[in-house]
This record gives sequence, structure tokens and C-alpha cells, in this order.
Amino acid sequence: MPLKNRVDVLIVGAGPAGVMCANALAMAGVDVRIIDKRAVKVATGHADGIQPRMIEVLQSYGLAERLMREGYHMHMCAFYNPRPDGGIERTSRVPSTIPPTSARYPFGVTLSQAAIEDIFLDSMKDRGVEVERPKRPINIEISEDDDELSSLSSYPVKVTVESLDAVNESKTEIVHAKFVVGADGAHSWVRKALGIRMEGEQTDYIWGVVDIVPETDFPDIHMRSNIRSTSGSCKIIPREAGLVRLYIQLSDADVVDPLTGRADKSKITPQKLISVAKKIFHPFKLADPKEIDWWTVYIIGQRVASSFSVKDRVFIAGDACHTHSPKAGQGMNASMSDTHNLAWKLIQVLREWSSLSLLKTYEHERRKFAQDLISFDKKYAALFSAKPKTVENGDGVSGEQFSGAFQSFGTLTSGIGVHYSSSTIVDPKHQICAKNLLIGKRMPPYIFIRAADISPVEIQDMLPSDVRFKLLLFIGRMTEARVTELTRFAQELSQPSSFLLKYSPNGDISAMFDMITIASGNKEDFDYLRIPEFFRPHWTRVLLDDTDVTGNNGGHGYERFGMDPEQMTLVVVRPDGYVGTIAPFESAAADMDDYFGSFMLPRGLDS
Amino acid sequence: MPLKNRVDVLIVGAGPAGVMCANALAMAGVDVRIIDKRAVKVATGHADGIQPRMIEVLQSYGLAERLMREGYHMHMCAFYNPRPDGGIERTSRVPSTIPPTSARYPFGVTLSQAAIEDIFLDSMKDRGVEVERPKRPINIEISEDDDELSSLSSYPVKVTVESLDAVNESKTEIVHAKFVVGADGAHSWVRKALGIRMEGEQTDYIWGVVDIVPETDFPDIHMRSNIRSTSGSCKIIPREAGLVRLYIQLSDADVVDPLTGRADKSKITPQKLISVAKKIFHPFKLADPKEIDWWTVYIIGQRVASSFSVKDRVFIAGDACHTHSPKAGQGMNASMSDTHNLAWKLIQVLREWSSLSLLKTYEHERRKFAQDLISFDKKYAALFSAKPKTVENGDGVSGEQFSGAFQSFGTLTSGIGVHYSSSTIVDPKHQICAKNLLIGKRMPPYIFIRAADISPVEIQDMLPSDVRFKLLLFIGRMTEARVTELTRFAQELSQPSSFLLKYSPNGDISAMFDMITIASGNKEDFDYLRIPEFFRPHWTRVLLDDTDVTGNNGGHGYERFGMDPEQMTLVVVRPDGYVGTIAPFESAAADMDDYFGSFMLPRGLDS
Repeated sequence: MPLKNRVDVLIVGAGPAGVMCANALAMAGVDVRIIDKRAVKVATGHADGIQPRMIEVLQSYGLAERLMREGYHMHMCAFYNPRPDGGIERTSRVPSTIPPTSARYPFGVTLSQAAIEDIFLDSMKDRGVEVERPKRPINIEISEDDDELSSLSSYPVKVTVESLDAVNESKTEIVHAKFVVGADGAHSWVRKALGIRMEGEQTDYIWGVVDIVPETDFPDIHMRSNIRSTSGSCKIIPREAGLVRLYIQLSDADVVDPLTGRADKSKITPQKLISVAKKIFHPFKLADPKEIDWWTVYIIGQRVASSFSVKDRVFIAGDACHTHSPKAGQGMNASMSDTHNLAWKLIQVLREWSSLSLLKTYEHERRKFAQDLISFDKKYAALFSAKPKTVENGDGVSGEQFSGAFQSFGTLTSGIGVHYSSSTIVDPKHQICAKNLLIGKRMPPYIFIRAADISPVEIQDMLPSDVRFKLLLFIGRMTEARVTELTRFAQELSQPSSFLLKYSPNGDISAMFDMITIASGNKEDFDYLRIPEFFRPHWTRVLLDDTDVTGNNGGHGYERFGMDPEQMTLVVVRPDGYVGTIAPFESAAADMDDYFGSFMLPRGLDS
Repeated sequence: MPLKNRVDVLIVGAGPAGVMCANALAMAGVDVRIIDKRAVKVATGHADGIQPRMIEVLQSYGLAERLMREGYHMHMCAFYNPRPDGGIERTSRVPSTIPPTSARYPFGVTLSQAAIEDIFLDSMKDRGVEVERPKRPINIEISEDDDELSSLSSYPVKVTVESLDAVNESKTEIVHAKFVVGADGAHSWVRKALGIRMEGEQTDYIWGVVDIVPETDFPDIHMRSNIRSTSGSCKIIPREAGLVRLYIQLSDADVVDPLTGRADKSKITPQKLISVAKKIFHPFKLADPKEIDWWTVYIIGQRVASSFSVKDRVFIAGDACHTHSPKAGQGMNASMSDTHNLAWKLIQVLREWSSLSLLKTYEHERRKFAQDLISFDKKYAALFSAKPKTVENGDGVSGEQFSGAFQSFGTLTSGIGVHYSSSTIVDPKHQICAKNLLIGKRMPPYIFIRAADISPVEIQDMLPSDVRFKLLLFIGRMTEARVTELTRFAQELSQPSSFLLKYSPNGDISAMFDMITIASGNKEDFDYLRIPEFFRPHWTRVLLDDTDVTGNNGGHGYERFGMDPEQMTLVVVRPDGYVGTIAPFESAAADMDDYFGSFMLPRGLDS
């Protein structure tokens, strides 16, 4: 099949941000192309950490099972600090993810970037989308015509794409796109072509990274470990198939060229990294590895792009718009989170379900996150690179300070702390109705039971990334009065003027919204047939806030979320799994009309 | 590839018992053929219930994931009884599996027999074994020569197999087998050919079965339900894909021919079954189904074969050796459990690792189970078919009696109550060392954590059905004294005279035994490197009895099993997951020598 030169979305770069985007678009049936300048994808090394929130995101695309099977699970983290007599000793072990009880996956997963990308590439391929390589953009032009820019039938971005190994066919082609996503890494061509600058600076911290199968008597080699010694710091990240990654702090003497005073990476070899690691490990032994799977050296830069988009037609994502130290395992996660945030918005707009203005929330949400990440990273990288407190160095960072900081950073590093601020799609007006269900944060995992068959159900599994808004109707206790209220509410929502019908394409509510009804009651006697049919489009859509038959899962969900079971509360979960808004029953219809009306197009525009 | 006319094992019948056996043998690389007289496999109906223990068994072969995904999960069971004013009402809902907390899978799974068989057929196919059909045995001869019967190099069973659709090739062939398994159903040709008789009798209970997609206002149609009404009894079994199976009690008037006084199945139609069900459902409505997926009528027979084997060269299994009522969902489970029990024994003997005498334990264990099952079934079927207690019928069975019996039968119907009695492979001598870990019962599920990386691990996942004996060394607390004891024990076990080396083929301990070391300690400071290397052949083999990082899984395993963490205890788990014996540290080496010596062949015989 010849490649189309008119596409809805052209993605530049097939790293984690690019493939996350391409897969999400492909799953929604969007016409997408993705190019990458590398002739073959990376095979080893690079990023390797998937944080708890990103596992949830993969699960929402149906991709977590393979990640979990192939990856290594990091449950605990050990801290090593200098002993008074030289060498290091373990001072504590703590859960690797903090707080583990609020996470669905109370651990991070490590797996090579190549294997993680494969999960997306295979999913895309099943939907007919493959990376075209080696190809790179050499020119990009965005229309200046306001009519074109405001129309969804036009293709206002023109990209000249060069095939790097073209022999028989034309070396360049022009691709006309409705949208372009530049996910082309820290040295992003797209970013530079658009004149977007990076704000922030390089640091003095220089680190080496090496992937090996270690032979050692270090007791916690199969655990995530942070070692701080008088010979420098080292971070251990266990990986799949017995691999272990070492992050090794380098001193100026190791890398700085005395003539120029500048870091010279060519002074470093993997053998040098191992020899530094050996000193840090003392008194534990680290044998020379038989093989070096991958290695690199980097100087930490902490920068955020001044803008994430041009005219909401071209976007940059991932390393193209933020760089930071890799030691908190944030890079790949932040990058994939960018395009997870962007993809559903592009799809809503391309389907003409939501207005172009929805796309403004991408920069609003993700640039703020990137800035928070950098400010966190500054503290974290400084702590990591700081000298430990010892008898000789009383001003150093103590073991307690370090592990305390590690723990307090937990909700950010796990990804579950991300909290988007107010916008058209985050309306915290009625936060009081569910005090512990924070509007702007991801819908937390929780076990409810299915009323019809008492199966335990993870609520997140009912919130797939399928571009639909999920309406969680917490109906509370099923009194007679409640049944009456629900019947009246069903009538109200069935009117053509209700938001459900007003914003659903061709009156097909289930294309745009997915309704889940959650009652408070007991599995021994709850009768879901009492709920008006409108609120149970299928028997699997009614959940109950009670424990399962073992008594070990579920129950007390209303309490957990800070909701009153005597009230009815409507929770809107965005297509990306974040709580968009919450409304009390009394004003729910009007509140929903306000909320969706702020970015959705009334169905009159469909045809 | 032409089919071999000399095979290690010939299986007759590709129902649940046959495919369980064929897959287990294929996974172990045994030379096996399996024939079935049906031209195509069953597509709908027949058995459909997988009980909690059988899910564990499937998991031990790596097959549970697909079952769980495709099947329907039965968590709860509702009871309906007559109302004083006519019609039925719900009197209670209870967990479908009792006691759910002791089960790894606290629910049964329902799925059509065809889909369950497919799971095995696909697994076998991956290993090059496929069912040959339509083919049937027409003659079977077992050698009378004692030398042949006691030799593993001879093929003492001669079976004439007829191809039922042979056109171009010979219609019959002679297959010479070392062993034959007759898994050819209730009307087993193998059983009849060997002159084995069924003991027991027909009952007067006549039931109809119908699989439909129901339209009803019966509130618990998606739950397992037992209805007892003045119009008869009905059992509801929800199934995959919205299907529901109804078991409907029929009265003599429905089926008995007044002329002959005998049951006449031809008097029954599925429409008749539905009309009986409608009466039982009253006051709830059951619409005429659009389609009948499958239906049948049966008269309950309760019989056990007088013998399960001839000369330990031909075995019968499944319905060929026991028939009973299907309402407790035992048929398919009992059948698959038969060959799960037999397969590893055949493999041990075929490899000349264990003596032929091991095979005697098949009948010892499975015939006893079948007898228990029948005596349970008599009570259960009688209860089910009895008239409910009402004002008019004061002698009937009350709702409390019925649901009480259902619950007390729970451990048997779930399959987890199976308890094999003493034999060469079940030695309860030292039961006192682990009071709650019953020798002869399956190793119960329990979460431990892996010492090296604090991953939670289900102990059953470390006990795959791989023909090896698992040695669980509970080493208790790691005191200095314990380290010394362990070092000495390691030396003792390393001697050529130790059972480990004596019974391992060519000195390859890991071919015959899998060692798992389980310590009592805390994840915050336990150091598994202190354990002598002999007891940690790989870092994943050392477990710790503590909670995982969430605090919600694991911990208190020694207490749960009734073990003293100040003592060392060795637990032997058989290849089929049952606890074979337990020994205290002091006599462990001698006890193991006694235990394995009673059925294993010293390695001198290998060559």
C-alpha cells in the first residue's frame, strides 16, 4: 500500500513518546504515520524504568501484562552509607515505591527501552501502523491562514521528509498533516525548526552508566540500592534476565580535560566505570564483568522547552521538551505521559467531538509537570551527587537526610502524585463531594464488586484509554427515595437537551460516554435490578461497594473517597484516567453541561 | 511423519481425562499417542465446571491464565426456597466456594468442555501431539509374561486400532504400548474389554440440562443459584459469553412411560425443560429462549469401577471408572484429577527413575477418592431431589438444611479437601512437625517473599507439574547455630550416599529434585547470602516468611503451617502438588532415604 501524503497525524521519532502516541492513535483508528531517522531501533541500554503510574497507563491500553511478564519488579530499595572505619554498610531498606499501599502496582518495573518499545510496536502493527525508517524531516511549514488553522478538513502542516536509504524511489516526499508531533529526543529537529528554546542549564554532575551481569557478594544486588560512599555514589537498578544497571558518580578528575577545563567523555571507558564502582562497593567485591551490555556517560542538564506547541498544530513531547537526570527513573515515564496526555485530545479534536481549544490543555498540563519535575530533579540530583556526612565531612548529607528525601519524593517519582491544575478539563468546584478523590489526579485503583455476580473488579480496569469519558455515578444507598430520584434523573438525562445527548455523536451516547453505577450495599442482599435500566446499560456496569467473598478485597470505597453514601455523586474520569470533575446529584446535569460545554462541540456540528 | 506402532503410552479417548494425560506426558517428552472415536470433538454442552483445586492444577501446567480469561468466575451462590404464599424467594447468598479464604482461587470457573479441552489440545500441539480421530480400539491384549511385564524395555500391551474413515490406508493397525490409559468415558470400551465391572446403581433421579442465553427478571441469573420450589428444583450455572446452564429436576410424570414404567428420554424436548423451569421460577419470569445452545436429559447413576488397572499396564480413568450426578460440578474435575495423579507416575516409571510399584498408588489414591465422591454424591443428589419443607410438607428438607449441607460439602466440591492416605508416597509419620500442613493434601497456596528482591511469590507457583519432587527446607530463624547446622547438613547431603545423589539420574540432582529454602526473618535486614550455597542454587530459590512491602501479602507462614521457627523442617511436595512427607531436621536425611527408597530406583540402575 503506498504511503499517504495526507495524514491526520505525522509523528517524528519512534522513541517511547513517539510509540506511545502512535499506538494510542492507531488504536483509535486515526490515520497516522511515524518516522524515525535511525535505520534500526535501539537494541540495548537507554531508559529502562517504568514507574507504578505508567504501569497503570499501559494497563489502560491493554499492554501491562506483557510488561509485567518480561520486566523485573522493584519492590524494595536498600540504602548504603559510609562506615566509620571505611567502606560501606547497609543502613536501611524501605519500599521502593512510596506509599506502596496507594499504588495498584506497588513497585516499579525495569526492562530495556527496546523491549518496552516492542510492546507498543507490536500493538501498533496489529492495527496496521509501522515505523518508517530511516527517514527524517528536513523542512516544516505551518500555514498562516486562520481559516485553514481553524478547520479540521485542512492539512495546515507541510513536512518535507527525506528517506535516508532511498535507492530506487524518490529521496524526499511532502507530507501534509493535520497535526505533527515532534517526539524526536533531546536534540529535537522539530523543536529547533520551530525556534522553541530550552530554558535551564547544564549541571556539573557527571555520571556513568553501565549494564552488566554482576558477580559480587554485595548482598542487595538484586534490589534497587543507593550507595553513598567516600569514593562517590552509585545507584543499582536490577533488570530483567539477571542484568544490573549501575549508575556511577564520576569526579572531575575522571572526566575533565585539564587543558580545556571541560568534560571530555572520551576519557571514559566502561572499564574505568567498573573500577570506580569497585571502590564504591568496598568492602564488597565486584568482579570484572565478562561482558558490558551497554554503557554511556552523561552530564546532567535540567531544561524545559519555552513552549510545547506552535499554533496547536505542531507539538513537541518527551525529551524534546524536557531533560533531567535519569536517576529517579523519570525520563521515559515523563515522555510517555506527555503523549498519553496528548493523544486522546488529538483524537477528540480529529473526530470533531471537541474543539481545537482542547489542545491548549496539553501544554498547560505537561509543561507545568515538566517544571515540577525539574525542580524536583535539582534537589534529587544534588542530593545524589553530594558528599555523604562522615566524621571528616560533617557538612555532608546524612543517610537519614538522604533516605528521608527519597521517601518524600515518592509520590512524584512513582508518577501517582501528578496533579493537573484547573482548566477547561479540570474543574475542582465540587471537590467537597468526594474529599479524597482529588480532581486533577488520576482515578486511584480500588476494588469494587460487580453487583450481579459478586466478582471483584478493579475500577481502573473499567477505565480503559478508549477516548471515552467515564461517568461514575455513585448512587449511595438504595432507599426507596433514591430509586425515585434516580428515575427522575434518568428522565432528565434522556432529554435531547441533556449533555449526554447534546455531545454524543449522532445520539450514540456509548460512543462518547461510558456509564458505571456504583452503589453502597451488601453482597448478601443487594438487588441491582432495582436501579432504573437507564443506569445499567449492561449487567456488568453496576458495582457495589463491598468486600468480595474472601473479605480481603474491596469495601469501604465511599469512605476511602470521602463520599457520603446518603448522597449521590457523579465523578467524571477523563479518557486518560484523570478525574476531570465531580458534581453533586442536585446540580449534576447543569454542572455536566458546563463542563463538557467548555470544550466539546454540540452534536449539531456532526454530520 | 508416519505414526509409530510402538509407543510408551497409548491413550484411548480425548475427553478431559485423556487430554490432561496426553498434555502432561507430552510436556515431559514422553512418546504418546491419543485416539478418539468421534470424528470431531464436542462443540457445545457437556461438562463445564472447573473447581478451585483444578484451577491450581491447570496453573501448575501453565494453563490457568487462558482458563481464567475465557471462563466465567463463580464467586457467590444464591439459595431460593418456597414462599408461604407460593412462588420462590431468596433466602440467602453465600460464597460459592467454602471456605474461600483457604483457596488460591476463591471461585469456580465455568467454560464449555470444548473450550477447556482446547486449552490442552493447543498445549499438546505445541509439543507435537495431536488427537488421531476417528479411531477406536477393537482388540486389546496384555502379555502374560512376567519378564515382559517387569521390564521397561518391552511393550507388553497390544492394541488393535481401527480407523473409522480410512479410505486409502489400512483400516486397522497394531499398536504396541508400554502403557495404555482408557479414558473413554462412561461406556468405556477399554473397561469392558478388560472385564472390569462397575459397582453401584442407577438412581430414580431424572434431570434435564439446557444451555441458554436467558431473558428473565430473576435477580440472581448471573450467579450460581439453587432453587427449590414446590414445582421441583433447579440449579443455575452462569457461563461464559452470557450463557446460563439450567439443571432442571424432572418428575416421573415428565419422563416415565406409563406403559413400561421406565424412563423414556424421547418424551422430553428442550421446550418441555423450559416450561418446567418457568414453573419453578415463579413469580419471576423466564422468556422462551431464542436459541437452545445444548440440552440433555439424564438419570443419575452412582458407580465406581471394581478396579482401576490391570497389571499396572492398562489403566482406566475419568468417567470410565466413576459416574455420579453432575450437579456438584465434579465429573470433569474428578476425571482430570485422575490423570493428573497418574501422569507423573507413568513418567517416573518410564524414565526408570521409580519402580513399577509406584503405579499401584494410582488406584489406591483415586479409587478411594471416587468412593468418597459417590458417597458424597448420594447425599447431595438426594438433598437436591428432595421436596422442600413447606407448610403442607413438614417432612421436607428445609432451606437451612440444604444450604448448610452445601457449605459442609464445600471442601470436597472445591477439590481442595482431597486427602490421600498412607502409601509409599504418603508418609505421615512426622505430621507433628507442621501440624497444619497436612501430609497427603495438596500444598496449600501461600505468599512468601523472595529474600533477594522482596518480590511476593505464591509458593504454588514454585511447584510446577514438572515431574520433580520439591524439597521445601524451612530453615527457621537464621541464628549462628543455624548456619552451623546448615553447613553440616549440606556436607551430609553432598555425600554420594545421600538420597539426593543416590536417586538423581547421572548425579544430576536438579533433574529429580528442586530445592526451595524458606527462612523466617524480616525483609528489612535478612541477608540470604549467609545461607550455605548448597541451599541456594539460584538467588530466586530463597524465600522469606514476611509480608511484602504493602504489608497486605504474606507473613506468618510458619504459624499458618503450624511450624516452629526455632526448628528446621523439610517438606516434600510430590510432582502433582501434594505433600508427600515431612521430616524434622534431626532425622531428615534418614527419613528421606526411607521415603524415596520405598519407590525410587537407586541411580546405579541408570545407564
